[in-house]
Amino acid sequence: MSVTTMKTCRVSVSDLERFCLGALRAAGTSENHAWATTEALVKADSWGVFTHGTKLLAGYLRRLRAGGIRTDVEPEIVSDGPAWAVVDGRSALGQVTGAFAMRSAIAKAKAVGVSYVGVRNSNHFGAAGYYAWLAAREGLIGVAMCNDVPSVAAPGSRTAVTGTNPIAYALPAGDRDPILLDIAISTVAGGKVYVAHQRGQPIPPDWLIGSDGKPTTDAKLYPEHAALAPMSGHKGYGLALLIESLSGLLSGAAMTHQIGNWMRGDASEPTRHGAAFLAFHVDAIAPSGEFAERVRALSDEIRATPTADGVQRVLLPGEREWANHQRAMLEGIELPPDVVVSLEGAALSAGVPTPWENEL
Amino acid sequence: MSVTTMKTCRVSVSDLERFCLGALRAAGTSENHAWATTEALVKADSWGVFTHGTKLLAGYLRRLRAGGIRTDVEPEIVSDGPAWAVVDGRSALGQVTGAFAMRSAIAKAKAVGVSYVGVRNSNHFGAAGYYAWLAAREGLIGVAMCNDVPSVAAPGSRTAVTGTNPIAYALPAGDRDPILLDIAISTVAGGKVYVAHQRGQPIPPDWLIGSDGKPTTDAKLYPEHAALAPMSGHKGYGLALLIESLSGLLSGAAMTHQIGNWMRGDASEPTRHGAAFLAFHVDAIAPSGEFAERVRALSDEIRATPTADGVQRVLLPGEREWANHQRAMLEGIELPPDVVVSLEGAALSAGVPTPWENEL
Repeated sequence: MSVTTMKTCRVSVSDLERFCLGALRAAGTSENHAWATTEALVKADSWGVFTHGTKLLAGYLRRLRAGGIRTDVEPEIVSDGPAWAVVDGRSALGQVTGAFAMRSAIAKAKAVGVSYVGVRNSNHFGAAGYYAWLAAREGLIGVAMCNDVPSVAAPGSRTAVTGTNPIAYALPAGDRDPILLDIAISTVAGGKVYVAHQRGQPIPPDWLIGSDGKPTTDAKLYPEHAALAPMSGHKGYGLALLIESLSGLLSGAAMTHQIGNWMRGDASEPTRHGAAFLAFHVDAIAPSGEFAERVRALSDEIRATPTADGVQRVLLPGEREWANHQRAMLEGIELPPDVVVSLEGAALSAGVPTPWENEL
Repeated sequence: MSVTTMKTCRVSVSDLERFCLGALRAAGTSENHAWATTEALVKADSWGVFTHGTKLLAGYLRRLRAGGIRTDVEPEIVSDGPAWAVVDGRSALGQVTGAFAMRSAIAKAKAVGVSYVGVRNSNHFGAAGYYAWLAAREGLIGVAMCNDVPSVAAPGSRTAVTGTNPIAYALPAGDRDPILLDIAISTVAGGKVYVAHQRGQPIPPDWLIGSDGKPTTDAKLYPEHAALAPMSGHKGYGLALLIESLSGLLSGAAMTHQIGNWMRGDASEPTRHGAAFLAFHVDAIAPSGEFAERVRALSDEIRATPTADGVQRVLLPGEREWANHQRAMLEGIELPPDVVVSLEGAALSAGVPTPWENEL
């Protein structure tokens, strides 16, 4: 087994899935948990969202081995009503709990039209957009969000107050790909700051807040001595608190500094992340076929918008990701070097071959 | 009756209410419609949100006279299920329909835990935060949003693609004031651009997109030759489409360029705005008392965050507005000059005295 750096690897979706499944099985997960996690991670890679794809696997394997993520449990609904539920993830893989919770939300929305499912005792769950898409795939509007360890400042603060608290939604669009947005409430993700630091590039003044509470352009200060800036100041901060409210406050999950750091924290301890899922049963609320027709008209209108020089077309949220997905299904996924390195580490730790092992 | 410019006027909340009621009655509205509209407008002024308070009255009176806003109708639920409803506003005052829709959402959430109410054929409804607060006042989490005429660019566009599509939420906080956020998805409101233009002040490069699709700092271009920039680029644009989806797509309201311009459009035509309301019945979902305790702990944690020099304390969303509200109830509201001028116009057109008439 060779350790490869700074090289990309092209793998087929099915080979990448097989690798993830093997590594997760080797870590003791059930077949169901291995599949749920694999599908979420590989879907993110196929969208080109490599920060939230199989790159996460190595960290999950570490927590599985140390006991912070449990293999011998199933998430369960601990309380519910006609239009809502609270799910206890019991420290299972975040993808297992996330998919279970969104499926619960879908079932309730199909029964009564709209639903909310709050989650406690979850883990890092990867790309929020994956869960939103689970709903859109069945013709519902899906919304997914979660809380996380504080890394984002509030207006006027010297330190981080909220997590990057991502929110995603997916909108079914008839025979077209769902409209799909997945964003963090910080101006940029921490990963972009790391990349700028590694490359010695300057960063814009609205990315980081230094430990004096003022904007800083010194990327190396993050995360020890700087926090991410909330998008549009009080707007991003305020949205972070709405997401915290639905993911943490209402569900009874850990909040802000009580959440475990899934990457740098004690891997034997649960992180107790919260999450929230909303589903809207389009077919119940809008006349049959009318919704898809209206989505199509809105999409066509947006695509026909005149653009700046050099811009071919105004894109719908998710359009780039679905183009990546189509290419991935046909030609495989070109994994960037950081993912390749991470998967080689995962393969080593799990004692399974990388997807490209046989080719070397 | 004197026309006063560039002067502020202090009025009591009750005098301001009495004035609004009188002007709306004179325009032919029922007692219920006059009260619903007055309460929403004066509440916004009491929060210090003067752009969305009684300053709007003159424009509403114009539409009431011209027939674009109707006085002889009531909003009604045209379809519903256990956890949702679609309300047709029938071109009544937007505040009447908004309050009716949020009350419907509250009732449904009290029955099944969570609810969505979509609105079609509404009008400009003022401050979204008012409707969110209606829910929080009864112990529920409320979310309110609406669509509007396009004034905000999308990444890469030369022209406006979405409205400023505001979203607001209110979170009940036990014996404390609700946490309350009300934001537009543009970097700043158009009003701020007008003010900068009037004062000849330069504006930051992230406020406007010129007709070449590039950022511009020339405030006088707006709105004819520039659009507002979406907050954080694709993030604000993507959220605008979620808000459009719940307010317009799902409810069957007008969308984007089909919406009437309530200020500059034909006042005899309905605007057909859409809106959406969500309510979460906290007492059903979280153990009694626990939610308030958790909100308190989170609020205290945020308030104790170390701050930048010159910043006294990290504020919770809405804290400034509730401080204004408390002062307004004790000392009255100091209306800024633009509101004073607008109310004098409203008084003239309605044939009623201004609240400060007797004092002059």
